[in-house]
Amino acid sequence: MELGMIGLGRLGGNMVQRLLRGGHNVVAHDRSEEAVAGVASHGASAAGSLQEVVQKLAAPRSVWVMVPAGQPTESTIEALVPLLSPGDTILEGGNSNYKDSVRRAEQVARRSIDYLDVGTSGGIWGLAEGYCLMIGGPAEAFRRNESIFQTLAPAGDRGYVHVGPNGAGHYVKMVHNAIEYGLMEAYAEGFELMAAKSEFQLDLASIAETWRYGSVVRSWLLDLAAKALEEDPGLHNLQSYVEDSGEGRWAVEESVELAVPAPVITLSLQQRFRSRQDQPLGGKVLAALRNQFGGHAVKKSDD
Amino acid sequence: MELGMIGLGRLGGNMVQRLLRGGHNVVAHDRSEEAVAGVASHGASAAGSLQEVVQKLAAPRSVWVMVPAGQPTESTIEALVPLLSPGDTILEGGNSNYKDSVRRAEQVARRSIDYLDVGTSGGIWGLAEGYCLMIGGPAEAFRRNESIFQTLAPAGDRGYVHVGPNGAGHYVKMVHNAIEYGLMEAYAEGFELMAAKSEFQLDLASIAETWRYGSVVRSWLLDLAAKALEEDPGLHNLQSYVEDSGEGRWAVEESVELAVPAPVITLSLQQRFRSRQDQPLGGKVLAALRNQFGGHAVKKSDD
Repeated sequence: MELGMIGLGRLGGNMVQRLLRGGHNVVAHDRSEEAVAGVASHGASAAGSLQEVVQKLAAPRSVWVMVPAGQPTESTIEALVPLLSPGDTILEGGNSNYKDSVRRAEQVARRSIDYLDVGTSGGIWGLAEGYCLMIGGPAEAFRRNESIFQTLAPAGDRGYVHVGPNGAGHYVKMVHNAIEYGLMEAYAEGFELMAAKSEFQLDLASIAETWRYGSVVRSWLLDLAAKALEEDPGLHNLQSYVEDSGEGRWAVEESVELAVPAPVITLSLQQRFRSRQDQPLGGKVLAALRNQFGGHAVKKSDD
Repeated sequence: MELGMIGLGRLGGNMVQRLLRGGHNVVAHDRSEEAVAGVASHGASAAGSLQEVVQKLAAPRSVWVMVPAGQPTESTIEALVPLLSPGDTILEGGNSNYKDSVRRAEQVARRSIDYLDVGTSGGIWGLAEGYCLMIGGPAEAFRRNESIFQTLAPAGDRGYVHVGPNGAGHYVKMVHNAIEYGLMEAYAEGFELMAAKSEFQLDLASIAETWRYGSVVRSWLLDLAAKALEEDPGLHNLQSYVEDSGEGRWAVEESVELAVPAPVITLSLQQRFRSRQDQPLGGKVLAALRNQFGGHAVKKSDD
């Protein structure tokens, strides 16, 4: 079918390529002219503005917004909505907070525009392997756009699912990412325990590679760990510094709102916070207190 | 090649079948005559005693011990060693504490018997998919027995690895299982967060199934979760009660001995402990204290 794609970053640009290969007609726009020219060279129709995207599509239109979550998504949708007609569909594929998706869907529904919040997993590997899509919104809009999902997913009959009303898609994606935090931390601690056992001189790269076959802990994340350890066995080229991009925090907030325990997900997020601290005050307080009550030795700062 | 297999439970029995299919000659023994008859029907040579196992094998012998960790493994090896000759190899595939494996290897080395501690993952799926093997012990003994590992592993060139000296095999298996605790808890918390979001009425089975394709959290454990949720969508047939079998505890002890943080692995173990408590005293203490200092309402026991 025909659709517009707004946002041609690592995700959006690859998705356009996968859609083109699948026989769809894609009208593509990005603030970067270079990014637009890039997908145009693969066969997309270039659009210099949101107006041009809308003009080049026949109603009822489907426009996929694939820009960073938060303000970029908010302002893109704000600018897009007045250009659209009743019966059009906005598909929003960023890592948005599901509460924003509920709110935006209600807003555009007043203009009879459908909204689908599409939790999208797969990252830079999605072009080759396909994306896993978790879709929230009206069932009718889901069905109308299903051929898009079939092309983006790993196969036409798997890897995409209509999970519920608006917000549900991004809620499930939030939980997906929160699970990812926990999985990653579990592997991280395991490799740390092996590296610390110096008497055995364990080769983490060959262990990770071996676990990929027949073990209970085999997974796609383990495949990536094996690849990273093979390229740099001690991970010497990396700092032990881990960012987070919001979904873990929202999942922890959700566990608080729902009063549902999620201790390992919570702690996995906290470990990321800890990874960014060089000389945290908390550790200094502990050292000071041990010194105060027990006279235990402390390490002084250099200056 | 030719080998003995002692212990024909779910793991040992399946391993004998996989070895027979791979062209090995297996002399099999178990305390259960029925288990011995079972593998004999597949082509194994039945042995009614440890003596008979040893007599039926030509030196240098390889004898795989696949009985539960702890006392069963200890007494089996104690009884086996006097029957063996210098140059023979004991392969111990249970979930033994690596410290026991170090000790046993030292003991049998005094009689010039080689010891290989073989961390074995794959469970009941190993027969069809192959086992992941993490092997500790002398390199020469590893090489002498490599054709056994090649047959048990998912493929002749992957899924088994000589990780280091005696103890290293079971150490790596211990860490493997500890990672498994963390992975499982991360999924568990994620599904709980989705089930608790009643306004979205999320279908956990279809979400788990969809995540198997293209998502970042795809894994073999997720495959099993999808299967379990498909068979019983609300898991109504299960109690929320989770056992542990030792390796998680040892990993946590190891993190303490090495002073290496493993908070998520530790907490995943603690969550299993918590799952077995119906009315834990700790919760009563908290309720009592809130009542004492703030007059907060408490729930009284029924009697």
